[in-house]
Amino acid sequence: MDLTDRHIGKNIEVFDSTLRDGAQGEGITFSVEDKLNIVKALDYVGADYIEAGNPGSNPKDLEFFKEIDLGSLRHAKLVAFGSTRRKDIKAEDDENCLSLLSAETEAVAVFGKTWDMHVTDIIKTSLDENLNMISDTVAFFKSRGKEVIFDAEHYFDGYKRNPEYAVKALMAAAEAGADRLVLCETNGGCLPFEVAEITAETCDIFKDSIIGIHCHNDSGCAVANTVAAVQAGAEHVQGTYLGYGERCGNANLSTIIPNLQIKLGYNCVPEKNLERFTRTARWISEVANQPLYRGMPYVGGSAFSHKAGMHIDAVTKESSSFEHVAPGSVGNERRFLMSEVAGRGTVLKKIQKIAPVLTKDSAETSEICKRVKQLEYEGYSFEAAEASFELLVKEVLGEKKKYFDLNYFKTTVDQPNGNNFSSSAIIKITVGDRTEITAAEGDGPVHALDGALRRVLEGFYPELSGVHLTDYKVRVLEPQKATGAKVRVLLESSDESGSWTTVGVSTDVIDASWIALVESVEYKLMKEEEKINQETGG
Amino acid sequence: MDLTDRHIGKNIEVFDSTLRDGAQGEGITFSVEDKLNIVKALDYVGADYIEAGNPGSNPKDLEFFKEIDLGSLRHAKLVAFGSTRRKDIKAEDDENCLSLLSAETEAVAVFGKTWDMHVTDIIKTSLDENLNMISDTVAFFKSRGKEVIFDAEHYFDGYKRNPEYAVKALMAAAEAGADRLVLCETNGGCLPFEVAEITAETCDIFKDSIIGIHCHNDSGCAVANTVAAVQAGAEHVQGTYLGYGERCGNANLSTIIPNLQIKLGYNCVPEKNLERFTRTARWISEVANQPLYRGMPYVGGSAFSHKAGMHIDAVTKESSSFEHVAPGSVGNERRFLMSEVAGRGTVLKKIQKIAPVLTKDSAETSEICKRVKQLEYEGYSFEAAEASFELLVKEVLGEKKKYFDLNYFKTTVDQPNGNNFSSSAIIKITVGDRTEITAAEGDGPVHALDGALRRVLEGFYPELSGVHLTDYKVRVLEPQKATGAKVRVLLESSDESGSWTTVGVSTDVIDASWIALVESVEYKLMKEEEKINQETGG
Repeated sequence: MDLTDRHIGKNIEVFDSTLRDGAQGEGITFSVEDKLNIVKALDYVGADYIEAGNPGSNPKDLEFFKEIDLGSLRHAKLVAFGSTRRKDIKAEDDENCLSLLSAETEAVAVFGKTWDMHVTDIIKTSLDENLNMISDTVAFFKSRGKEVIFDAEHYFDGYKRNPEYAVKALMAAAEAGADRLVLCETNGGCLPFEVAEITAETCDIFKDSIIGIHCHNDSGCAVANTVAAVQAGAEHVQGTYLGYGERCGNANLSTIIPNLQIKLGYNCVPEKNLERFTRTARWISEVANQPLYRGMPYVGGSAFSHKAGMHIDAVTKESSSFEHVAPGSVGNERRFLMSEVAGRGTVLKKIQKIAPVLTKDSAETSEICKRVKQLEYEGYSFEAAEASFELLVKEVLGEKKKYFDLNYFKTTVDQPNGNNFSSSAIIKITVGDRTEITAAEGDGPVHALDGALRRVLEGFYPELSGVHLTDYKVRVLEPQKATGAKVRVLLESSDESGSWTTVGVSTDVIDASWIALVESVEYKLMKEEEKINQETGG
Repeated sequence: MDLTDRHIGKNIEVFDSTLRDGAQGEGITFSVEDKLNIVKALDYVGADYIEAGNPGSNPKDLEFFKEIDLGSLRHAKLVAFGSTRRKDIKAEDDENCLSLLSAETEAVAVFGKTWDMHVTDIIKTSLDENLNMISDTVAFFKSRGKEVIFDAEHYFDGYKRNPEYAVKALMAAAEAGADRLVLCETNGGCLPFEVAEITAETCDIFKDSIIGIHCHNDSGCAVANTVAAVQAGAEHVQGTYLGYGERCGNANLSTIIPNLQIKLGYNCVPEKNLERFTRTARWISEVANQPLYRGMPYVGGSAFSHKAGMHIDAVTKESSSFEHVAPGSVGNERRFLMSEVAGRGTVLKKIQKIAPVLTKDSAETSEICKRVKQLEYEGYSFEAAEASFELLVKEVLGEKKKYFDLNYFKTTVDQPNGNNFSSSAIIKITVGDRTEITAAEGDGPVHALDGALRRVLEGFYPELSGVHLTDYKVRVLEPQKATGAKVRVLLESSDESGSWTTVGVSTDVIDASWIALVESVEYKLMKEEEKINQETGG
């Protein structure tokens, strides 16, 4: 059963295409600055090759290749990407081939057709001319001193229909001197058993070549297909770090590498780099301005989050009971979520993190559990709102301070004619014996209220000036009651040291937002005080 | 290579756990109303079993089982979920077992331990007592006339460490009469080759039983593991429709079913139901208030989106060149990103439903497509808002009537002290030469505005008195901009003859709601006029 030891220490090359194939994903656009940043992140995590763009098709990519300082890379090689020459011309006369050279990278990736249908029906040339296009182009780059990675586009679909031709095309690249032969599962529709079989047969034919694998996720099997290809003999793995890519995305390297290295004993990246995985995932998703999918294996925010009471109880006794690997092995951490399916044990653990002196028998513990239950019944959810939960605990302990008194606020939305909306808020508060009033406009009443609250409080608490809202979620509860329904608002606030989430529930979206806004401010001020108390030993 | 024909027509049972295991996912909370809605969606798409909750651990689940009308299900069986009896007591004395009965479902799912470590270290009893717990509990439910689905928790991890005991535990369930033996890959860490091997060995031992498979996605292989288990002999597939679930989620049924049915020839759901897949995915994600991950295989918004110019060119010549299945086979559609011709065929079909005289070459068709594209770019979505789409078509055709002019409205939210909220709206409109002003209070400004609009219009159009709002959904777009972000409001209105949905988008939630409110009224009045015209032949 255990195949692990067969592979101990076998090296697998990691080739990341976030900046090329990843950039073809919907909603993904990288500036030159973004690309430089992502190269840094991929080098840090241990990629061997970073495919960074197609200088022939995209002037921004060319600019990037001019700007990057290759000396700054510690480990990775940069790769420029392009296609075989066009039909019926020479490689040295092909603009795309020439622009690939202009990127001045050590390695180039060149894709060519291996599915006969694509040759005859899409690029509309003869099967022989396509073989010439492959060998000419590979030979051209080899004669210019490049390491050549040949991407055999649609290799699996081609092999399923016409294996002889697919192999001939790969042979043309090998005989012209290609350094890597990469089998591309371009349409992403294959299942692991097919990928395993075709890769094994191909490795058998090309015993002296290094075979690579490049998968897409259209059947939800890109990770499994890649692992299957490696088990069948591939030694070079292509993908994108977070699975970005056209349609359903490319094979996700942040999942594949731990699978291969932790579970099967292959050697993909230096051992210590695995602990950088979660951090790198956050870094790349920040630069790409994409939310990091919280259920992403290994690196997602929920990857080691437990909600069912029984799971929480078990994982506390023995972590392997509900965790397939130790969260720390990939730099992630275990979290316990609060919910109606969580037992009292979970709430206690959360409480003890905030107030270690409390036990399960403390009167305060009972009171906190009672309040949480009541609030959840009213529609609150503390699962994602840990800051609000901490405030609740402090309140029961009598440690919650009041930082201001609200005299009143008022929001107004005016629609004076068909087109001009205007939202504004007035707010009056008292801190100590000083009363201040201010107003703000905004995109909608909540935005205006947020602006006015921050503005009036900054006069008293300048530390609030670095805080800004980074996420705002509205969930309508009991939707059958339509506009009279309750809403739950989740607010995420951030400053330079981190982010925190607060929650408010009301039948009125503005009231719910207000509750969450106030707690956001209270949480920040409480944390600032705690910091000062620690520093002064107070 | 082609294994497809081996499986033509072999039946595979579909068991969905969105409402139970799915509800253990981070950020997922279902109200009773949500659950009733999702049961409807899962029944519509063809699930055989719908696991709907754990009545013993959760009072909301119990309430759901009391409310649901089992006669309304066309195809699916409802399943209540619970565990084997506690150690050292009788099943008939176990509260959880009794509460499972109180759900009054035809089938129950009972999970038990099959990994020896969990028996000795987590529930801390003897290996023999655990076998008794399994057989007693299964026998108890069989004696009460239930269909019993036995979930063998941690079967794969257990089998890897102590195959004899794992098989013994499964045997205890089989001999006590369990109708299905489900092998659970609870920790989600296995790879397909392990799942295939263990499932094949187990199917070999339990030749007379129906074996099921239940996978989690912690190694990113839940889909591949499930497919591998089916190829190895499993005939019952568990998962959640969109992959919701604890940690990295459960196996995604909306990916697995098309893989099994379209690619391998198994029979999971009635053939025509595959075309409902994309619609059902949107429906369930709306109810769950979770964004539908756009890269999700088959049903995601990007699943058949093409961005690279070469791909767009090729797919236009021959769809299989960059599409693993036809988008329409799962009710999805091809999209070209940043391209003039996006989805025009689809829009045309929708237009012709409303205005059969229009062809793809009509000037009006171009104009409608242009407007839809622009509005979608601004954040509108007509997918669920067909009433708004119909109004847009009528407007381009010059057939949209104006039923009233807005002079102005004004909403106010007052927070005069800590507790008393008051929201009100004033509205002034003109119809013909009559101008009316009115005001209303409500739970929040949108509710007040809705009340005021209906009140002032009923004086002119009494047919509006039967209309009421039945659903109100707010989705925040571009969440990284926080309270300054755009929101999309979907309003569902109903009267005695049916329901219709309208949409509004704005940075201001009140503006967005207003747009949708006005269209709701306009749609109703337009339909009333059409009815009268038909009746009078006018």
